[in-house]
This record gives sequence, C-alpha cells and structure tokens, in this order.
Amino acid sequence: MRKKMPHRLYVEYPLLKDDLVELSPEQSHYLANVMRAQPGDAVGLFNGHDGEWAAEVAQIKKKCVGLRVICQSKQQHSEPTLMLAFAPIKKARIDFVAQKATELGVSHLQPILTHRTNVERVKTDRMQANAVEAAEQCERLTVPTVSEPIKLGELLAYWPKDRMIMFCDEDLSGLTAHTALSQLPEEQKASPWAIIIGPEGGFDDTERAAIKANTNTIVVSLGPRVLRADTAAIAAISLWQSAVGDW
Amino acid sequence: MRKKMPHRLYVEYPLLKDDLVELSPEQSHYLANVMRAQPGDAVGLFNGHDGEWAAEVAQIKKKCVGLRVICQSKQQHSEPTLMLAFAPIKKARIDFVAQKATELGVSHLQPILTHRTNVERVKTDRMQANAVEAAEQCERLTVPTVSEPIKLGELLAYWPKDRMIMFCDEDLSGLTAHTALSQLPEEQKASPWAIIIGPEGGFDDTERAAIKANTNTIVVSLGPRVLRADTAAIAAISLWQSAVGDW
Repeated sequence: MRKKMPHRLYVEYPLLKDDLVELSPEQSHYLANVMRAQPGDAVGLFNGHDGEWAAEVAQIKKKCVGLRVICQSKQQHSEPTLMLAFAPIKKARIDFVAQKATELGVSHLQPILTHRTNVERVKTDRMQANAVEAAEQCERLTVPTVSEPIKLGELLAYWPKDRMIMFCDEDLSGLTAHTALSQLPEEQKASPWAIIIGPEGGFDDTERAAIKANTNTIVVSLGPRVLRADTAAIAAISLWQSAVGDW
Repeated sequence: MRKKMPHRLYVEYPLLKDDLVELSPEQSHYLANVMRAQPGDAVGLFNGHDGEWAAEVAQIKKKCVGLRVICQSKQQHSEPTLMLAFAPIKKARIDFVAQKATELGVSHLQPILTHRTNVERVKTDRMQANAVEAAEQCERLTVPTVSEPIKLGELLAYWPKDRMIMFCDEDLSGLTAHTALSQLPEEQKASPWAIIIGPEGGFDDTERAAIKANTNTIVVSLGPRVLRADTAAIAAISLWQSAVGDW
C-alpha cells in the first residue's frame, strides 16, 4: 500500500556507523545485476535487532558488493510474539503463507505434521528465504524464524504455560474472533500467542480434542464458508493483529 | 479447512425437483473427463438463489453431461452485502484476490481505476470464472458479481446514501478495524458495505481526501507494516466479516 524504499536488505551482521558490510553472493548479484545499483546508491539495512540503517553502495566487485553503513534511520521496536503453527500445504501455497504471514507480522513459522498431512518434506530453507524477501519488502525490522516440522502431539506436549492458542475450529462452535479476543483479560492479550491452522480436510477428532484440552486455547470461528488453509491462516492472523497485536 | 463435497457446480438455471439440467461444454468436460464422473454419481448444484440441490449424473454425451435434480439439500440464506472496490493488480494476484474474496464472502467485486493504477485492461470474465470456481469449492450458495472497472471519482460521485465504506488508509491515522467497527451503531453495521483498497503505491492525496470526505467512511488502520494490495484486501475482509459480517 505505502511506497517502498528502493532497496532494503536483511543481513546477519551487527550494524554500526561507518562499518563496511560485504553482501552475500546472492544479495550482491541482486543489487549489482538485477537492480543495477551504482556506487553511492542508497540501501537500507536491518538485521532483526539493531533497527534500520541507511547505507550506500561503496564498492561493486565481482560477486561481492560492499556497503558503507551511514546512520541509524529507524530504531528497533518490540513486536508481538506470534507463532503460526500450520500443516504444510503444496509448494506455491506454502510460499504464499510464508510471505503473507511475514507481511502480517508473524514472528515464528512452525510447520506441524497432522494425521491428515500428506506433504512428505517441508522445505524450511525455502520458507525462510520467502520470509526474508517479504520482510525486506514490507519494511519490517525483523524476519520470522522458521522451525523444522514437528508432530502436533509433540508440539502440544511441551507447550509453554504462558503461550495462548487461537484455534480456528471448523465446527463453528467458537465465538467470532472479534468477540472471543475482546473478552480476554489484558495479561492474556499481552502473552505470547500461537495460531493453529489445520490441514486441508481439517484436524481429526482426537487432534481437535487435544488442542481444545489445552487450558490456554481460545476457540474461534472463521464463519460459515469453507476456507482453504492458506486463507484461514491469513484471516486468523489479521483478526489477531487487530484485536490483540500491534495494528 | 472442512472436507469438501466431491463435485459442486454453479449453474444459471432454476433448480427444481426432477428437472434435467444440461451442463455447459466446459462443465461437461470437467465432470466427464477431468473428474471422470459416471452415471449415478452425486453432484451438488447451486444457482445463487434456490439453495443447494442434490443431483446425479443422468447422461454423459459428448460435450454434454445431463444431471437429474433430486432434492434440495440446503436452503438459501441471506448473506451480508459487501463490495470489494480495489485497484487492479497484475494477473496472478488479481486471480488470487477474486478467489480469496469469494471464499471470505464478498458479494461484489468492483475494480477501480486510480491515479496510480498502471494496469491497462482488466479481464473481468477471468475474475468471474475465478469467483465461480472458488464459490464451488467453498460451499457458498452464491457467486460474487464482477463489474467492469470504473474510475474512483465516478464510483464516489454516485455513491448510495446507505452504503458504508471501510477505508484502510496507509497513513496509520485510523483506529484499528477491531475498535472502529465495534463502536458503530447497529443500523450501520447492518448496512450494505464496501471496502476500498488502494493500488500498490497507495492512493494519492486528492483520492484519499475524496474517500474520507464521504460521510459514510470509516477509516481504519492495518498496522505498521507495509501490506501488498492483495494482502490488505484479505485482511480487511476478514476483519469486516468478524466484526460486522456473518462470521
């Protein structure tokens, strides 16, 4: 919606005034060959904890672009802690979920294996790359972390006591998210949260029962129409952000 | 999320017990060749106003499958009136908006031409086809209508007195949607609504002023991160449905 800065890159270095940051071969290629950057061009840098820094292209060598860090342009600020736990879906749509969840402010992406999950392998490195790219484009100062897939049962077995769960159940028994989240006491709103989204075809009854048995679980309804898993994820994150997060 | 019926088709015929419905060549091809339906197979039919009907494959001829209508399986019910007015974006993402908006319950898709719109032609027939397919898959009983593009100024000039506007402004001046929509009197919540989403790069100042000048406009914020136009549309529809719609 808003205009973007021309170039904005995530790096894993500390960011300090006057430092020379050498970009990875991939980022160097992107900046030098795709964006055709020239010495002196402005670039924004962020690393997830030092805010955003204005930098400029200092040297363009083969396979390595160097940036001079000039000054901090945005301070780091705290963000809500929100895990999206979701059953992996096919490739194009998992890319999409990683991108949109990043735009919408999720802090952690956790693929879960369920009884009806039929995706064998989850390319978490590809999800992470999608998350980095989306964070660069949406002016986030952080990049969501991505975990290896875990069985739903194991995730629930070691669930942190203080982490709330927003569970979008398909049986329409829940309140609207709007109502359910409004009613919560402030300390629960401010807790770390997770949104749990089922696979296409839904969780089975034992899985649904296990999620609902967690005393931190808030069951919400996403309405009478059947949502695909990726749509449900985006809808749920939006509702959570507006009611409990930083929107 | 929930399990889908195996075949579910939108038709433009009235639906009456014992009628024989002849499908279009495209739907016949889909059912006979893609889904490999056999005589006697169950199919659900809906037409936007007669509810959903159970039918079965009665005859499979070259280029024409005939279905026998058996009985009404779901009654038609009223749905909220929600227009999504959005600046067209490039092809893959406009398909996506048409699909997701349908899943999320939008009743009318209205492409708008803005000062920063750089899409020349909008394939409204393609948008309509995407909407039909999504409605078939998400168990909706209706299909959103799709209008030809209109200039934002013209749309606003003939704005119906009773249609509310949810405007997701990028300057962060609005309340959260959660708060803004909760505060509305019931008769405004129950009005027809439109959600207006700007182009990539945003509306310009005169356009934003024109939207805000409408006395029916509620300005809401979608948070501090930059959302792409398609993400903003899905987020806004979700928030509206949960607070004011039928979720």
